[in-house]
Amino acid sequence: MTISPIKPQTPASSTSNNWATVEESPLTPDELNKINAYWRAANYLSVGQIYLLDNPLLKEPLKLEHIKPRLLGHWGTTPGLNFIYAHLNRVIKRDDLDMIYIAGPGHGGPALVANVYLEGTYSEYYPDISQDEAGMKALFKQFSFPGGIPSHVAPETPGSIHEGGELGYALSHAYGAAFDNPDLIVACVVGDGEAETGALATAWHSNKFLNPIGDGAVLPILHLNGYKIANPTILARLTQHELESLFVGYGYKPYFVEGSDPETLHQYMAATVDRAIADIRSIQQQARTQGLQGRPCWPMIILRSPKGWTGPAEVDGKKTEGYWRSHQVPFSNMANNPNHIALLENWMKGYKPEELFDKNGTLIPELAELAPKGHRRMGDNPHANGGLLLKALKMPSFQNYAVEVPEPGTTIAQATKVMGEFLRDIIKLNSRSFRLFGPDETASNRLSAVFEESDRTWLAQMYPDDDHLSTDGRVMEVLSEHTCQGWLEGYLLTGRHGLFSCYEAFIHIIDSMFNQHAKWLKTTNDIIWRRPIASLTYLLTSHVWRQDHNGFSHQDPGFIDHVANKKAEVIRVYLPPDANTLLSVTDHCLRSCQYVNVIVAGKQPALQYLDMPSAIKHCTKGIGIWEWASSDRGAEPDLVMACAGDVPTMETLAAVDLLRQHFPELKVRVVNIVDLMKLQPESEHPHGLSDKDFDAIFTTDKPIIFAYHGYPWLIHRLTYRRTNHHNLHVRGYKEEGTTTTPFDMVVLNELDRFHLVMDAIDRVPQLGYAAAYIKQMLQDRLIEHQQYVRQHGDDLPEIRNWKWPYSSPANASNGESESHSSPSH
Amino acid sequence: MTISPIKPQTPASSTSNNWATVEESPLTPDELNKINAYWRAANYLSVGQIYLLDNPLLKEPLKLEHIKPRLLGHWGTTPGLNFIYAHLNRVIKRDDLDMIYIAGPGHGGPALVANVYLEGTYSEYYPDISQDEAGMKALFKQFSFPGGIPSHVAPETPGSIHEGGELGYALSHAYGAAFDNPDLIVACVVGDGEAETGALATAWHSNKFLNPIGDGAVLPILHLNGYKIANPTILARLTQHELESLFVGYGYKPYFVEGSDPETLHQYMAATVDRAIADIRSIQQQARTQGLQGRPCWPMIILRSPKGWTGPAEVDGKKTEGYWRSHQVPFSNMANNPNHIALLENWMKGYKPEELFDKNGTLIPELAELAPKGHRRMGDNPHANGGLLLKALKMPSFQNYAVEVPEPGTTIAQATKVMGEFLRDIIKLNSRSFRLFGPDETASNRLSAVFEESDRTWLAQMYPDDDHLSTDGRVMEVLSEHTCQGWLEGYLLTGRHGLFSCYEAFIHIIDSMFNQHAKWLKTTNDIIWRRPIASLTYLLTSHVWRQDHNGFSHQDPGFIDHVANKKAEVIRVYLPPDANTLLSVTDHCLRSCQYVNVIVAGKQPALQYLDMPSAIKHCTKGIGIWEWASSDRGAEPDLVMACAGDVPTMETLAAVDLLRQHFPELKVRVVNIVDLMKLQPESEHPHGLSDKDFDAIFTTDKPIIFAYHGYPWLIHRLTYRRTNHHNLHVRGYKEEGTTTTPFDMVVLNELDRFHLVMDAIDRVPQLGYAAAYIKQMLQDRLIEHQQYVRQHGDDLPEIRNWKWPYSSPANASNGESESHSSPSH
Repeated sequence: MTISPIKPQTPASSTSNNWATVEESPLTPDELNKINAYWRAANYLSVGQIYLLDNPLLKEPLKLEHIKPRLLGHWGTTPGLNFIYAHLNRVIKRDDLDMIYIAGPGHGGPALVANVYLEGTYSEYYPDISQDEAGMKALFKQFSFPGGIPSHVAPETPGSIHEGGELGYALSHAYGAAFDNPDLIVACVVGDGEAETGALATAWHSNKFLNPIGDGAVLPILHLNGYKIANPTILARLTQHELESLFVGYGYKPYFVEGSDPETLHQYMAATVDRAIADIRSIQQQARTQGLQGRPCWPMIILRSPKGWTGPAEVDGKKTEGYWRSHQVPFSNMANNPNHIALLENWMKGYKPEELFDKNGTLIPELAELAPKGHRRMGDNPHANGGLLLKALKMPSFQNYAVEVPEPGTTIAQATKVMGEFLRDIIKLNSRSFRLFGPDETASNRLSAVFEESDRTWLAQMYPDDDHLSTDGRVMEVLSEHTCQGWLEGYLLTGRHGLFSCYEAFIHIIDSMFNQHAKWLKTTNDIIWRRPIASLTYLLTSHVWRQDHNGFSHQDPGFIDHVANKKAEVIRVYLPPDANTLLSVTDHCLRSCQYVNVIVAGKQPALQYLDMPSAIKHCTKGIGIWEWASSDRGAEPDLVMACAGDVPTMETLAAVDLLRQHFPELKVRVVNIVDLMKLQPESEHPHGLSDKDFDAIFTTDKPIIFAYHGYPWLIHRLTYRRTNHHNLHVRGYKEEGTTTTPFDMVVLNELDRFHLVMDAIDRVPQLGYAAAYIKQMLQDRLIEHQQYVRQHGDDLPEIRNWKWPYSSPANASNGESESHSSPSH
Repeated sequence: MTISPIKPQTPASSTSNNWATVEESPLTPDELNKINAYWRAANYLSVGQIYLLDNPLLKEPLKLEHIKPRLLGHWGTTPGLNFIYAHLNRVIKRDDLDMIYIAGPGHGGPALVANVYLEGTYSEYYPDISQDEAGMKALFKQFSFPGGIPSHVAPETPGSIHEGGELGYALSHAYGAAFDNPDLIVACVVGDGEAETGALATAWHSNKFLNPIGDGAVLPILHLNGYKIANPTILARLTQHELESLFVGYGYKPYFVEGSDPETLHQYMAATVDRAIADIRSIQQQARTQGLQGRPCWPMIILRSPKGWTGPAEVDGKKTEGYWRSHQVPFSNMANNPNHIALLENWMKGYKPEELFDKNGTLIPELAELAPKGHRRMGDNPHANGGLLLKALKMPSFQNYAVEVPEPGTTIAQATKVMGEFLRDIIKLNSRSFRLFGPDETASNRLSAVFEESDRTWLAQMYPDDDHLSTDGRVMEVLSEHTCQGWLEGYLLTGRHGLFSCYEAFIHIIDSMFNQHAKWLKTTNDIIWRRPIASLTYLLTSHVWRQDHNGFSHQDPGFIDHVANKKAEVIRVYLPPDANTLLSVTDHCLRSCQYVNVIVAGKQPALQYLDMPSAIKHCTKGIGIWEWASSDRGAEPDLVMACAGDVPTMETLAAVDLLRQHFPELKVRVVNIVDLMKLQPESEHPHGLSDKDFDAIFTTDKPIIFAYHGYPWLIHRLTYRRTNHHNLHVRGYKEEGTTTTPFDMVVLNELDRFHLVMDAIDRVPQLGYAAAYIKQMLQDRLIEHQQYVRQHGDDLPEIRNWKWPYSSPANASNGESESHSSPSH
């Protein structure tokens, strides 16, 4: 054993005092030297990744041509991440722990890659990056280099379920991973920069939703390295009393480890990790043997260490270690500063690589044995490649929940209420692998049937009259869309299933989280060792057309547009018009993998159109002509009335009714779209219709009036390459700032039956001279209606009670064209 | 004086113990009775708004026809908001305070409207809502009724700078309002539901950025009413020790007021508000007379009172007061439940309206005199209609910062670095009315020149080697986009100016906040008494095409798409291609009112195209033909090469260079777009070009190759109605998941010079047989380049060092068509 004994570094000025809550020294001198050497190896590999193209073991004097021309990466957080990794390895190996590592400071990509390489996982997943000199050279070169890997912890990094490029989600991911994984400990490093984000600041409260019996544990490690890109961090500049109070207030038991002297800090960190693991085991054992006695106070670690620890103390006379200048690349511009080359060489040689790696570049056995083995390696833990663990949901037949629809457009049901019954039984059949997430809106969104099977999880104080709260519910409600999304992502990424229900307008709160998850899916599709995970499915309800009791703030259907910007292979958007189609779509989405599914559906009582057999056919096709509502009957239509979304469908059918009354000769075709991506060309989206099929449905030359749930431009964007696009007229939501009651809102937004008919009159040339009179009559009727609404606060009865008046006994379910009777009024 | 003495209510079970940190009784019996009566009046008016169409004073027995057919509103939070309002009125009047009220639980619209009505402001702003029986009837009817007002605190509510529909932003708005308003106290009610959101959870740390000398004070009042829509709240279910620790940890001095007995709570609340105001005054006085001695520990109030306080204890045998069932409308369905009508009548009569209002329906003078007068009324405080206080910025001439551009496309500058110098001097000239906001990215975004004039504000601990931190900086940096946005909104809404600089990809974090602000602007445009406020201007940089050292997570140009969904009258999007155009655009944006301006500009060294006179002309037009780069010279072009954005502009010009080399006869027109909204029809956006002008620039029948900064679909969406749209081919950003170095990313995204030339070859028919060979040569060159990048980590020198090779001495600034010399290579 030739490892040099540890020596104190120059202490960084801001952290010259070493202290800890647990000031014990559990490591023997040999253990201390080895863990420090392992850390040195990880630090060496980290610096090498940031700087070197060649000469990885520094066998020859370092020259400019060994160094990357563009230096791109982040050093600051890296040594701390390496330090933590080494100490977690120690307890995993000793106690045979099942643990994964979430690196909130995801810019510290070099650290995670270095450690996964040291433990051997990296070379198993990427054989070209072998554990020898050639592999080390390739490891260095690929980092943040064209054709290589990103500088962040990323999907490409084995052991990661978390991309740290956009900060804020480490802790909610960690809790999501821990739910229903009773043996798992999720170590979650939270950077003090990330800790300033909103998403992270509220995620600490996730401890009120973690059950020590059925769930695993989260061990948060708040890493105070003191600086962001160019600023100090808030948490590093609180008083000690405030810092401790804050985390006591969040409900944790904080253990502090502070300083810069490696020898001392290794001892303190080892003692502290031992204590934290003991606390976790004690909480779990007590709860699992004696039952739950109130919410546990889980441990957390607050590690204060210098930014860029062990890096150069000064560069060009300016403070660097323990300062923000270490954040990214501490020094560069090597071509013009030959002394920077020497500085780099001295820095790297300070880790004594010749002691750590043999002459072939392989980690020496005395150090390699410090890492856990097989799946216990954090880089190879199957929870971090959740698809390995994924099992299909047990699904009840969605047809069992069908609403009876004896005639289309005549009966009333609440789509999400029906869906709630389906979800209830999915929860029942999958009691450890499915959860329902939402910001306190499950009941408001009419999914209350789920409470017949399961409660809301709640581990904070409970009162006797609390409603459907328990310590082990399947319904996860917290008034933070960020936390809901983060939990669900963590849950899915570790191989489970779930659904997020949200008010449509407020889902924009997690636009950027959706972005990151969609990118994760897109990237993992191209990573050969990543296994598919269950799709992330949104139910967006309380939607824009039904904001009865709310105002303008609750109106925004733009999430669909946001989603449509992402790579087609990972996104799906569904607008089922009624309950049975919602059931069919939900079933499809919950069975799928590697997508983000967006389902938009209303919660209010509404007309039902399709019986279950018809609904299945319609949803399977995704788009279809509704023969029962059409009057072209095999002939060429004069007009296509298309619709997507529940309210637009109702208004379209009511418009078709008016057209039939006033223009009985007019041949109208009604087209309904459930799967919005059908509108795109097949070259743009895997669901896209061929031009031939599109033309067959929409004609090549007839006017199309399209009533759409969201912003109308999206329909143009999806269809601008289609033959008949120039005849397409779309009505959708416009930003008008309206208030209250649905129909008045429809009127103000001009997506209503009257406007749709007037559009048709404007566009169908053959309607004759009477059309102008009819248009004027409709305008008058609309104004009368508007006056009535503003006087009575409700729709005119003829509007409120409108139903589809044409008999169509068997729906379209028999697949034949029915003969349609005359209007019943 | 006929006001009944106060009597204890039935205590709500969860809050039966009344206690406070300050258990004093400063109110005389008369004061107590009066403040309670005022509260009763506000509660009465609140219930009336939610329920009544007619019979506002309950002079006749309440009947079904007096009640709204749809009951839409929120009662739960309302009595607490009324309680707080009454107590703030008391100290405002006594101490002549300058105070505004931010209602985080914005669903409590009835409370704010009731109070603003009681104090007389409402009738001054809306004379139809007079202070008599007819006015009260109109007040009741309009609430949450078609054609009336929303159920939230909204722009229509005098005294509000905050729409509470989407929760999370109350506290950051409050701090933004307090900055640079040393005499102002912003009372900010934070609901315990809202407190669970991420944005709110981190906004508490805003106290590290508030200077007691130059800024005003924020008095947060955390209102624990215990329940959300259907769940308890987390903060209401912590232990007392945790709750107190949390806010001590956040750096506040919390004062508790808890209970349900009005008499006791009036006394405690009065004593507590007195104490909090005294604390604020003491902090301010000490700092202002003796200088700042460390960060102050500001007071806050934690008020725990029953949800739906004073409402019915039970409805239909179910617990209602002090429970989530009070959240919205505690009971409805009056037509089928006649006893509900009696319940409502008894509830309302319990407030004894006959004591509070005279027989004309006017508040009795003994109570009316409790409200402050004139601008001291919180509904009439000018800070809450910030446009009243708005003054134009003192602007240095942006031309003074011009970059010299002797020939287009030959010199290098960093656009945002130049803009930083302009911002520096704006800060200098407007030292109390302009701030720069950003998430720790001011230096990273190359705006560092501002630090020559001002520091970053920082009131947490400081170390001697801290860099440009001071207690009174103009640069506001916190690693929370939510807080930055909220502060800036609060600052603008109270009549000041600012700018938010952000990495382009991460601005999606505040998508939903942008939504709400854009809607606020749109709505206030239609409110006659609201005065215009300064525009909210974003600088988006570190943009998608320059993510050298980051990965896929940092790539997303979709904020522009999100913005483009909002009402055209309030949004503007600018893509200046270089430094001088960025200066001109910035000047324009900072002078504007009532818009959201989005400026996208790069921070990297890049080619410069326009000298200042040309830049001014180009930006004023917003779109233009670049004659110096075009080869059509007055003739009809064969091809239009259009571009928007800095990288697309460079690639387009390089493509034009290649086209000129290979097809010297080809007549190419180069069009550059700065103001993206120019592309829309004039009917859709006030900046939109007429079809005639659009056709003149883009031709009616020639191929257009459009290189665009963002997702290509937006360009189609903006132009799909244009004559020549079918000839438009757009290249933009696509979601491909690339890594590192700009040109490689450009290549992978296929927005590069080679692809643009190949597009032209594919679309211009008259290029002849040689075109195929040239296309193949370009493909080979592209592959060679890609290989080079992946080997060397940098662009091929001919790409890296490319400049516009054609002489064009005086730019286009002389307004004449220059004769162009031959290529210099």
